[in-house]
Amino acid sequence: MSKTTHFLAETAQVDEAAIQALPGSRKIYVEGTRPDIRVPLREISLSPTTTSGVDEANPPLLVYDTSGPYTDPEADIDLRRGLIELRRAWIDERDDTERLDGPTSEYGHRRANDPTLAPLRFDLTRTPRRAKPGRNVTQLHYARQGIVTPEMEFIALRENQRRQALSTKYAGTEEVERILGHQHPGENFGARLPEEITPEFVRDEVAAGRAIIPCNINHPESEPMIIGRNFLVKINGNLGNSAVTSSIEEEVDKMTWGIRWGADTIMDLSTGANIHETREWIIRNAPVPIGTVPIYQALEKVKGAAEDLTWEIFRDTLIEQAEQGVDYFTIHAGVLLRYVPLTARRVTGIVSRGGSIMAKWCLYHHRESFLYEHFEEICEICKRYDVAFSLGDGLRPGSVADANDEAQFAELETLGELTRIAWQHDVQVMIEGPGHVPMQLIKENMDKQLEYCDEAPFYTLGPLTTDIAPGYDHITSGIGAAMIGWYGCAMLCYVTPKEHLGLPDKDDVKTGIITYKIAAHAADLAKGHPAAQRRDNALSKARFEFRWEDQFNLGLDPDTARKYHDETLPKDSAKVAHFCSMCGPKFCSMKISQEVRDYATEHGLDGDRQAVIKGMEEQAERFREQGGELYRDV
Amino acid sequence: MSKTTHFLAETAQVDEAAIQALPGSRKIYVEGTRPDIRVPLREISLSPTTTSGVDEANPPLLVYDTSGPYTDPEADIDLRRGLIELRRAWIDERDDTERLDGPTSEYGHRRANDPTLAPLRFDLTRTPRRAKPGRNVTQLHYARQGIVTPEMEFIALRENQRRQALSTKYAGTEEVERILGHQHPGENFGARLPEEITPEFVRDEVAAGRAIIPCNINHPESEPMIIGRNFLVKINGNLGNSAVTSSIEEEVDKMTWGIRWGADTIMDLSTGANIHETREWIIRNAPVPIGTVPIYQALEKVKGAAEDLTWEIFRDTLIEQAEQGVDYFTIHAGVLLRYVPLTARRVTGIVSRGGSIMAKWCLYHHRESFLYEHFEEICEICKRYDVAFSLGDGLRPGSVADANDEAQFAELETLGELTRIAWQHDVQVMIEGPGHVPMQLIKENMDKQLEYCDEAPFYTLGPLTTDIAPGYDHITSGIGAAMIGWYGCAMLCYVTPKEHLGLPDKDDVKTGIITYKIAAHAADLAKGHPAAQRRDNALSKARFEFRWEDQFNLGLDPDTARKYHDETLPKDSAKVAHFCSMCGPKFCSMKISQEVRDYATEHGLDGDRQAVIKGMEEQAERFREQGGELYRDV
Repeated sequence: MSKTTHFLAETAQVDEAAIQALPGSRKIYVEGTRPDIRVPLREISLSPTTTSGVDEANPPLLVYDTSGPYTDPEADIDLRRGLIELRRAWIDERDDTERLDGPTSEYGHRRANDPTLAPLRFDLTRTPRRAKPGRNVTQLHYARQGIVTPEMEFIALRENQRRQALSTKYAGTEEVERILGHQHPGENFGARLPEEITPEFVRDEVAAGRAIIPCNINHPESEPMIIGRNFLVKINGNLGNSAVTSSIEEEVDKMTWGIRWGADTIMDLSTGANIHETREWIIRNAPVPIGTVPIYQALEKVKGAAEDLTWEIFRDTLIEQAEQGVDYFTIHAGVLLRYVPLTARRVTGIVSRGGSIMAKWCLYHHRESFLYEHFEEICEICKRYDVAFSLGDGLRPGSVADANDEAQFAELETLGELTRIAWQHDVQVMIEGPGHVPMQLIKENMDKQLEYCDEAPFYTLGPLTTDIAPGYDHITSGIGAAMIGWYGCAMLCYVTPKEHLGLPDKDDVKTGIITYKIAAHAADLAKGHPAAQRRDNALSKARFEFRWEDQFNLGLDPDTARKYHDETLPKDSAKVAHFCSMCGPKFCSMKISQEVRDYATEHGLDGDRQAVIKGMEEQAERFREQGGELYRDV
Repeated sequence: MSKTTHFLAETAQVDEAAIQALPGSRKIYVEGTRPDIRVPLREISLSPTTTSGVDEANPPLLVYDTSGPYTDPEADIDLRRGLIELRRAWIDERDDTERLDGPTSEYGHRRANDPTLAPLRFDLTRTPRRAKPGRNVTQLHYARQGIVTPEMEFIALRENQRRQALSTKYAGTEEVERILGHQHPGENFGARLPEEITPEFVRDEVAAGRAIIPCNINHPESEPMIIGRNFLVKINGNLGNSAVTSSIEEEVDKMTWGIRWGADTIMDLSTGANIHETREWIIRNAPVPIGTVPIYQALEKVKGAAEDLTWEIFRDTLIEQAEQGVDYFTIHAGVLLRYVPLTARRVTGIVSRGGSIMAKWCLYHHRESFLYEHFEEICEICKRYDVAFSLGDGLRPGSVADANDEAQFAELETLGELTRIAWQHDVQVMIEGPGHVPMQLIKENMDKQLEYCDEAPFYTLGPLTTDIAPGYDHITSGIGAAMIGWYGCAMLCYVTPKEHLGLPDKDDVKTGIITYKIAAHAADLAKGHPAAQRRDNALSKARFEFRWEDQFNLGLDPDTARKYHDETLPKDSAKVAHFCSMCGPKFCSMKISQEVRDYATEHGLDGDRQAVIKGMEEQAERFREQGGELYRDV
């Protein structure tokens, strides 16, 4: 809050904590078929394994990188200028958009010309783009025409994480490859996970509506990414101010912090002061897609009186935000009048903010909401900027008791109906999901969503598997998120420890992100995503070999791992110690068992059991003769 | 570490943080068929729901309470004296035990008579008990003879949490009961969860080997509890010093802290200095069963040289610990010589400390371990004190890559064989399980364990569903723990954020416990344990009604919930505010939807859809006439 009064555009500075490369890591770029397709990956360098004084190299690990230019020391970061327009040429070349003279929304125009906002305003020198009359600029539209866009190629390279190259260029010994290459078969529940993601596969998935690429033509700064169950599971981080707390700078900091730790998209859910300007700062500096819930801002415009909302105000808000570059809109068009009373006997009624706003509007006017009635007009707007739909679950359960009830599934059916309408307009769609759901009821959500919404990507909040742990809802929901991700959910919306209690701060954002990276990765592993296990294997190999620095650096949060280790064994020498404070030097099982292994492999005891037993008999005596000492001095 | 040099028995003091009642809570006791069966429960008082100025009472919620006398303001806590002998009369009355003159183990005798240890030693005035010659004092033995012990009756009352009484004595209005009483059907995978737990049901489950009651006759201070998949899912918290860090006082503090937050049992895994004395302090002050891994201490006795371990040293250690009151022993008797080479090609070899010690011994001596060869003699010891087995999974996977491999399941088969031997001696048994297992492979662990071990209770560490998050393994494992608890695991061994990195401190203990309480409760909900959902419902009702204090107090960690809330809205007035800082006053969906609900119910709109629509038409006009203002002033 302290920053609120001090924020000034001319002195805005990037959060120093967000622009360091991660430990042991460097940014690399994989080039596509044209030089301006440069796909960022993070390369984690590993130290060699030393056995009997001989070093054996460990190949570096490449991981998906959401942090954008911030972690590239070559990049010149200046929040006031924003990020470079990565996709500008691609959009230009398609020649289906035009530059406007300025914002065409009434509100956007007004804000741009309000002199009192000058100190806060991002200095955007260019004007918005819009589709030329009669053109449709969505990735879905291109995909259906058989066009593989640069965005699609970018995504294919990004999803592959260069895993094919790894087995050749970076190949270590056969032993290293055996360990790193091992992967358990997955249970994919109908997902299709090819060994190699090709640009054509991306196009095909988008064309079928099974995946979306949120990339508004007015957000050329963003690095293309895809959301679909046949790709890596993604996560979203929410931020945004409220009337009670926070400032523009804090929210930008949360964004750069969130993507550093792995947020694939960011939703700006601001409901407080200067929503328009806050969003501009975020989008101009975001290398990931930005989502919003436009009804929040629309409600601000009518001073919080839901019944005063009109289609005209909402429409103007959509255009305002589309011209700023919002990549996906949460639209609660499935809250139908007849569903509202179905929530009356719930334990927690309607807990979606957007859902409750629309419910109130419907009750007051006794008619279907303007979101539902004007849905095709919303599609018309979306296709002129390529804004994807995130069809909101306004009636999601807010408690375990309300899970999977009639209101929830009735709305889901309507979301399916709206999905098909959006698809008629070639507008990309994903579907939002619950909420609070006990474990045994989670799969029904996924199954019904696939059925009702014809495999459009599912995007769920948690779900929280119990209500009884305020302060720990990142965990109650991380459990449900991992499970639904396994079952086929394409993107998981994080929940922070502050859920139900207050606005998350930067620490909460990080905790939420890491928890959800765990859930998403656990889901990728369980689905059997090709090479998902490579990182687990590399980390476990490092752990077993007491390569502490590598263990930290391969983790999702090297800083915290290092800090925890150092609390009890801070000395540098402990980083090469063959133990930690958990067990101490004499009791470390890793240490003992590595020596069991050395002993067994040295003596050829890793074959079939009979040979092993015979071999061991012969070797046991020699082992004793040598003193039987398996411990080594550190 | 600072406490190490200062610990003195004569000045030992209880951790002040552990002896306060939890907020809004008081300890109550449910009396059984005899006055000395007094089962502790925690009663959480709730404030009334105020609607239009009229108060409607909310019944207090009773929850299972592991914290023992510490949270009872009536109790006079003095660590130096230890807890009262709750079960003394029950043990006496059975008249099948005798008092010994003193410790019969050579080591126990030596420690008791070492004058240099006097400053550290707990001043125990009584001597150990042992079964009279030819007698078997296990709860399993009694159960099979058809005897319902006071311990079993205590457990029945404890597991019921007085839920039958709730619907009568504490009944609120019909509406309150409707909300609180709602529960989704569970998916129990073959578990049997009766509406009411009777003492006879407890006896029957114990007799069948499907549940165990760890209660050494030398730990009369403990409050009986049960571990079995047809009961509430339990959690264990580990503590213990290592050669690198910690002291007696710190470990006792971790115990009292751990049970405050819900640890059902505690394992003392000390491997550092003064193991014997540390354990004595813990047991004398522990109202929950204490487990150990005796091989750790045995290894200390041979100065860390695994090959020097002998049956005699181990046997003496078992007797030493049994006479102190250890309630269950982890015994890695399933690590057979022929299984060791199966681990040689693993990514992380053997990661169980006990498993690696035994593997080393087997290799060195080239014979089956003394644990396996002397297993029946171990049974003879256990049945004289009623120490339960926790058959250790010495070959559990230490990485996702090694999950569900031949070594792991071969050992599990052997554990099944040992289970049947233990049962021949009427010794209680549970089986330890992994480890690191990706989600899609978890259920196979549960299914095989039930099959191989004839439904003996399963007790798992996690499992961790990915290896890539050191510093967050409470979460990677909490996901797996919730799932395996759902599938039928009886007790979940916690993992703290320090796992793989260092020894947990008090904060880590709490984080681990709360995470595992979430997992256990999520599992109870998913299994459909009767009335598990009552707490979720009560909390969600409080949340929906903005009863902030109740929401905090009903949570697993009221202190943290309150702290998080107060970070952004610290004023007392905010505790009755109909919003939090997350959304601010205008956007709170709970606030809006409560008013939607009030509106709907006031107008009879919660019936069938057709009536609703008709009714709404009639009422909408009146709603508008009233100004349509759903917001209330705070």
